[in-house]
Amino acid sequence: MRVLGVDPGLTRCGVGVVEGVPGRPCRMVAYHVVQTDPGAELPDRLLLLDQRLTALVAEHRPDAVAVERVFSQHNVRTVMGTAQASAVAILAGARAGLPVRTYTPSEVKAAVTGSGQADKAQMTAMVTRLLRLDSPPRPADAADALALAICHVWRGGTHDRLAAAQRAARTGGNR
Amino acid sequence: MRVLGVDPGLTRCGVGVVEGVPGRPCRMVAYHVVQTDPGAELPDRLLLLDQRLTALVAEHRPDAVAVERVFSQHNVRTVMGTAQASAVAILAGARAGLPVRTYTPSEVKAAVTGSGQADKAQMTAMVTRLLRLDSPPRPADAADALALAICHVWRGGTHDRLAAAQRAARTGGNR
Repeated sequence: MRVLGVDPGLTRCGVGVVEGVPGRPCRMVAYHVVQTDPGAELPDRLLLLDQRLTALVAEHRPDAVAVERVFSQHNVRTVMGTAQASAVAILAGARAGLPVRTYTPSEVKAAVTGSGQADKAQMTAMVTRLLRLDSPPRPADAADALALAICHVWRGGTHDRLAAAQRAARTGGNR
Repeated sequence: MRVLGVDPGLTRCGVGVVEGVPGRPCRMVAYHVVQTDPGAELPDRLLLLDQRLTALVAEHRPDAVAVERVFSQHNVRTVMGTAQASAVAILAGARAGLPVRTYTPSEVKAAVTGSGQADKAQMTAMVTRLLRLDSPPRPADAADALALAICHVWRGGTHDRLAAAQRAARTGGNR
């Protein structure tokens, strides 16, 4: 399966695409960082992010989208932008008819390093090793996005299949 | 000018449409409340909200969209959903090529009641009076959305004209 991971941010939004199956090493397809001007108006920034993410989903045709879940324990100003960027990312996947799954930072860390407490350097090192890259993906936003995509592949889309079954049950059919 | 106001929320999102010119009483065109199931998955909720708001913008063809600006001083769980719903609302306007403006709750209160400290009952009473309605709009989410739209009309779209001029200056033209 091919997964597009998004590390949401309004100023810098990481996007990483990987292919693989649960329990096997993944292959990196591509990574990108979408940037918007912090001095621009919020509607213009959200629109630009929407256009770029929608284009990347269309370009890479993933089977699923994985987005980091946002908490408000961080800087108050930043977290609002991050929450809004995550909504744009989730919508870009959902509007393309793809399953979209959110993961907490510790779920991603645990999947990639074995520890939910791993630091940024350790995450980047593991992503580089797992994808057998010659050098670490730069900037770090891209490494985080690739880690999200790996996390989703390795968890085998269990949640997606569950959600699809629940939707089918709700709509009363399995067509 | 016709303005579509949005009081963003993931569970209940108020939408109010008014027509008017600065300094004159506004006329109410319509109001709606878009609801999504709190038990549903976040991507499904954001997608539903996106579809409904996009349809309402297409139906009412406003000249501008006004959205309440979100702060994270409230309940942590609620505010993330509100921030995400506001991103969906801002995008629905921006994707339709409309100017989108955000207002703080106190800007709206000051515009409609003369006081930035007005309570909900006072806001609803003023919206009912200003739009010459027979009874208060229900639920309160709708009254807040109408108040946002009135606020934008009365501020005369000053900000929109400024932003358009700045955009024209940035792109080096006035076409």
